[in-house]
Amino acid sequence: MSTTEDLTEEERRHKQRTRKHKAVVDAKIAAAKVDKGLVLVLTGNGKGKSSSAFGMVARTLGYGRRAAVFQFIKGKEDVGERAFLSRQPGVTWENCGEGFTWETQDLRRDIATARAGWEKAKQALADPAVSLVVLDELTYLINYRYLSLDEVLPPIRNRPDMQHVVITGRAAHADLVDLADTVSAIRDEKHAFRAGVRAQVGIDL
Amino acid sequence: MSTTEDLTEEERRHKQRTRKHKAVVDAKIAAAKVDKGLVLVLTGNGKGKSSSAFGMVARTLGYGRRAAVFQFIKGKEDVGERAFLSRQPGVTWENCGEGFTWETQDLRRDIATARAGWEKAKQALADPAVSLVVLDELTYLINYRYLSLDEVLPPIRNRPDMQHVVITGRAAHADLVDLADTVSAIRDEKHAFRAGVRAQVGIDL
Repeated sequence: MSTTEDLTEEERRHKQRTRKHKAVVDAKIAAAKVDKGLVLVLTGNGKGKSSSAFGMVARTLGYGRRAAVFQFIKGKEDVGERAFLSRQPGVTWENCGEGFTWETQDLRRDIATARAGWEKAKQALADPAVSLVVLDELTYLINYRYLSLDEVLPPIRNRPDMQHVVITGRAAHADLVDLADTVSAIRDEKHAFRAGVRAQVGIDL
Repeated sequence: MSTTEDLTEEERRHKQRTRKHKAVVDAKIAAAKVDKGLVLVLTGNGKGKSSSAFGMVARTLGYGRRAAVFQFIKGKEDVGERAFLSRQPGVTWENCGEGFTWETQDLRRDIATARAGWEKAKQALADPAVSLVVLDELTYLINYRYLSLDEVLPPIRNRPDMQHVVITGRAAHADLVDLADTVSAIRDEKHAFRAGVRAQVGIDL
């Protein structure tokens, strides 16, 4: 560390400024004392919603805790996140989808698939041994009315105190936003797909 | 699958609508034929930038490919993503930070730390065996002028063709946005911290 004596004028000003800023930041951190299980909603049209949820699965595993992932729309394709994370000790992974509506073109089957997936997710939402529940693409099931809010919200509200829930998908319903502790809206400023680049291994798959 | 005969009116309309939509989506997918190494910028003030990068590390590992992670600001605290991902075969993990400016309060040391980290990152950006390079919190080093754009941009531009780079951090510089193939701006609509909840294990750490 530089000693105070040999600092340039810029370095001295930097030290003063950052010392003041540290006091402000430390006060804010000291004011945040609560520990609780969070509901996070990751919505918007941009890239990074599901990826972010999988990053939190990795974080959870870093503490030797358990995570349960429910993928509600994506089909059975062998994607990277599933290949890697589903084989980790402590991870439960359920594919509860068969692709987007325009793939199946079968409303009755899509609803049945969604309901079967939700029944499984409810078990994880009642299990205090599960530290993180990822409900990937859940927003669509609500927006398409495959699941009602009366079915979805109570199991999330009544989950174990310290359990975290991450919900992803575009256009999150206002009631999900209300329920959430943290909401990130991911704006699509630029996307390689529009420049003719298809989904890339390790990034999109 | 339901047969066409036993469909309700709503189900039949759904089938027609989704069939049309599938044609539109399929045409777009058919138009995207390029494979290339992408630059992704995840910026904005909301929760989920670094988490998303770590999710893409998990995806990369799912294909047995290699990832290199450089954390430019965060200190040596034992966080979940590092505990879990850094011990995976195929992952190189470098802590190139000692905390935010207001923690060290030492401009000269912060610049030296940043430059040492960037020297290591340049090696990964020149290595075709590395499929994904994560430059976590790189935006701050540019915004604080610890690293110049002339130092940062060429190694990214000249990297191996199929290597992906993910850059995270608030307030990404316009030149980084220009260079990127995909840019997501994560808006902070709500954050548990403002309601008095401190950083939670498995979510923020």
